[in-house]
Amino acid sequence: MFKKIAFSAFLLASLRSLAQSEDEKLQIDSIYDHALHSKTSYEDLRFLCKEIGARLSGSEELEQAINWADTLMKGIGDVKVYRQDVTVPHWERKGQNAYYYSNRGRQKVRISALGGSVGTGNYKISSGVVEYESIEALEKADSADISGKMVFINKPFNESFINTFHAYGACSSQRYWGAVKAAEKGAIAVLIRSLSNSDDNHPHTGVMGYDENVDSIPVVALSIQSANLLSEDLKNDTTVNFSLKVNTIFNKDALSHNVIAEIKGSEFPDDIMTVGAHIDSWDIGEGAHDDGAGVVQVIDVLRIFNKMGYQPKHTIRFVLFTNEENGAKGAKRYAELAISNAENHVVAIESDRGGFSPRGFNIDSKDEELKMKIRSWKPFLEKFGLHDFSDGYGGVDIAPLKKVNENITLLGLNPDSQRYFTHHHAKSDVFESVNRRELALGTASIATLLYLLDQNVK
Amino acid sequence: MFKKIAFSAFLLASLRSLAQSEDEKLQIDSIYDHALHSKTSYEDLRFLCKEIGARLSGSEELEQAINWADTLMKGIGDVKVYRQDVTVPHWERKGQNAYYYSNRGRQKVRISALGGSVGTGNYKISSGVVEYESIEALEKADSADISGKMVFINKPFNESFINTFHAYGACSSQRYWGAVKAAEKGAIAVLIRSLSNSDDNHPHTGVMGYDENVDSIPVVALSIQSANLLSEDLKNDTTVNFSLKVNTIFNKDALSHNVIAEIKGSEFPDDIMTVGAHIDSWDIGEGAHDDGAGVVQVIDVLRIFNKMGYQPKHTIRFVLFTNEENGAKGAKRYAELAISNAENHVVAIESDRGGFSPRGFNIDSKDEELKMKIRSWKPFLEKFGLHDFSDGYGGVDIAPLKKVNENITLLGLNPDSQRYFTHHHAKSDVFESVNRRELALGTASIATLLYLLDQNVK
Repeated sequence: MFKKIAFSAFLLASLRSLAQSEDEKLQIDSIYDHALHSKTSYEDLRFLCKEIGARLSGSEELEQAINWADTLMKGIGDVKVYRQDVTVPHWERKGQNAYYYSNRGRQKVRISALGGSVGTGNYKISSGVVEYESIEALEKADSADISGKMVFINKPFNESFINTFHAYGACSSQRYWGAVKAAEKGAIAVLIRSLSNSDDNHPHTGVMGYDENVDSIPVVALSIQSANLLSEDLKNDTTVNFSLKVNTIFNKDALSHNVIAEIKGSEFPDDIMTVGAHIDSWDIGEGAHDDGAGVVQVIDVLRIFNKMGYQPKHTIRFVLFTNEENGAKGAKRYAELAISNAENHVVAIESDRGGFSPRGFNIDSKDEELKMKIRSWKPFLEKFGLHDFSDGYGGVDIAPLKKVNENITLLGLNPDSQRYFTHHHAKSDVFESVNRRELALGTASIATLLYLLDQNVK
Repeated sequence: MFKKIAFSAFLLASLRSLAQSEDEKLQIDSIYDHALHSKTSYEDLRFLCKEIGARLSGSEELEQAINWADTLMKGIGDVKVYRQDVTVPHWERKGQNAYYYSNRGRQKVRISALGGSVGTGNYKISSGVVEYESIEALEKADSADISGKMVFINKPFNESFINTFHAYGACSSQRYWGAVKAAEKGAIAVLIRSLSNSDDNHPHTGVMGYDENVDSIPVVALSIQSANLLSEDLKNDTTVNFSLKVNTIFNKDALSHNVIAEIKGSEFPDDIMTVGAHIDSWDIGEGAHDDGAGVVQVIDVLRIFNKMGYQPKHTIRFVLFTNEENGAKGAKRYAELAISNAENHVVAIESDRGGFSPRGFNIDSKDEELKMKIRSWKPFLEKFGLHDFSDGYGGVDIAPLKKVNENITLLGLNPDSQRYFTHHHAKSDVFESVNRRELALGTASIATLLYLLDQNVK
């Protein structure tokens, strides 16, 4: 046992000392200097948020953002920029209103229809409300208690999770499956507690699902303050009567696009490394952290490589995916085309967890050797704040690339998660909530990993 | 060589596996749960910021805050709370105004007198301005260029530093010594670029120094926007005439207090561990990050230990120091009394770098064995986001304890630094800039380190 430990430790020590050559260190310092000294990327984000704004699939603003990004990337030196046509859903929110009467009188409720929810048209529906602490509790409930009523699923974030994405993951089924599970028991609508750890009064939207064998009923998210108030009133008052009006429209599918900038590899032109983010957003707020930050980071990585005159060994694709929020059609299309074109994808990096101070990358890979190599960089990368290279999910937009190559290495930028779900899918996801240096450190982290992978893979 | 590496690595591996007992792990999980689930500490901060507000030495608000903290700590179970009298300076800002005329007309300048600066009384002074890129450039300048004029020192933060405290350190001499160096060459006043990496329009104050052998002249900080504008105008325009009115008052010294809660150690009652923050602030903003965050964290560590029924082995002192900002008289008094009472101080932890997401602790210690032990906890503490245990400065309030025991181990909580100098000593250092979970993670980090040190020292 001693020998084994000692030998692995020695191997690890050697690997570490060899992990970064002097040239690699200089290049990485240069990447950080470029990212931190320039304000261009931050100003790009300001433009995307303030001059274009929210950009839901099917909207004019989304195509405006795609055109803007296309032009911006074409302006960055000698790079091939092209598009992929993607058919996307075109759902729209047309107005919503909710309140209830309790013994205390009329209470206004702050709501947001979940993306893809059917509406009540121009009509108001009213009924009693039954609260469940989770979707699991709802599944165990008796239909007789639910039939003809609204179901309220009120599972809060578990504050014990250090990484708030874990708390989000533990609640997300109520948002996605709430409508199906409640309709199965005869509910007429579903109210869910927003997936957030913020105490503010903004409802947080997000995607939801239906089942073709179950009636589609409206589902809306309540702000945390509204959810707390409703829950309190339901405890003390059996007369609560909730009124909901939510108007949503399903237009016919729209044409959208992935935008791609590509640099051909000098040594391995057929081996593709993708770095991506999504250009669409929900229809509220400005999509600043989700995922405007990722978009301007991906563009800035391209800009930094160009300024440094860096010629990658592998072909690198800077991809702005469309329709991540309600369908991930852009991601699916990108993978489909990769299969039909028989492309070889070796690595993909995604930024879609906000423009906060980076802490590392989630790694999703079967390639144990490459994972060990990436982790061997940690002692060097820690001075930049990158310390976490745990196994974890890469991201929605790069996940379908596993169908192209099951051995691909997927990496998800992992910024500090504490503030993400304050802004996620809500009115407060605006430019002002992004810090310039935090954003730039994320950019530098992505560029650094991409550079090291380009240098070290194969 | 092989054997040596292998053996140290083996030793390290053993140390790591033994670093945390199962009981320690359970206690630490409990600390995090207590900190993250309670909102009391965040509400304490809201009260301190909104109901009391800024609390400069000598002000009524500072003594109000001290009374509030005293009462609050006395309310936390069976704990001895007492005060130390401290004589503090009582400087006041009474009004300030600045503008200049250039070819473009009149430009309003956003200024803040530095703490301790003399004023111009109720009079306006006007003159030309000479700009220097740093205090070193000023030192090399010819008195003939400066005499009778105002000196403008305009050194910006170096964006290349990952940790913004390093950028701050590289600029801070212009704030502290600007008035002396300029007066030596006959200047009538000094304008400095605020020590900040934010592009906003808030001037950032801070402490400055005089030399008794050199005339005392007024010194003010300009907002970054004002500094950039003035610098631009000075490049193109030789007619710039700057007018400055700044009224400051030196009252006679005031009586203030350190407030201390103490838990007697069960095994080593004579060995003291201090955990501290400062209760005073500058007179602008609300002192939320600096250092309201530290104050409510220290109080919350006491509350958590109490809730957990934790009986420490060493005597633990929860100290709220007065007058950190303009004199550190509270810190000096605490150390003086420790010497005169022949106390034995073994460890001190300070929180005074903002209520942001924690990344680790600076360690300042000659005790190599204890440093190695603290670093052996890293593999376990990383899941809480604590990855950085570099050698570094502990903090202004615990530094004087080195005079009590030169082998003391000083630890400074090291939160993510990217947003600190946006708010530092400025109008924007308000409650709303602090995130509840980031603050709570800082509290849990301090409680965890203190707990591990209490369990493992001696």
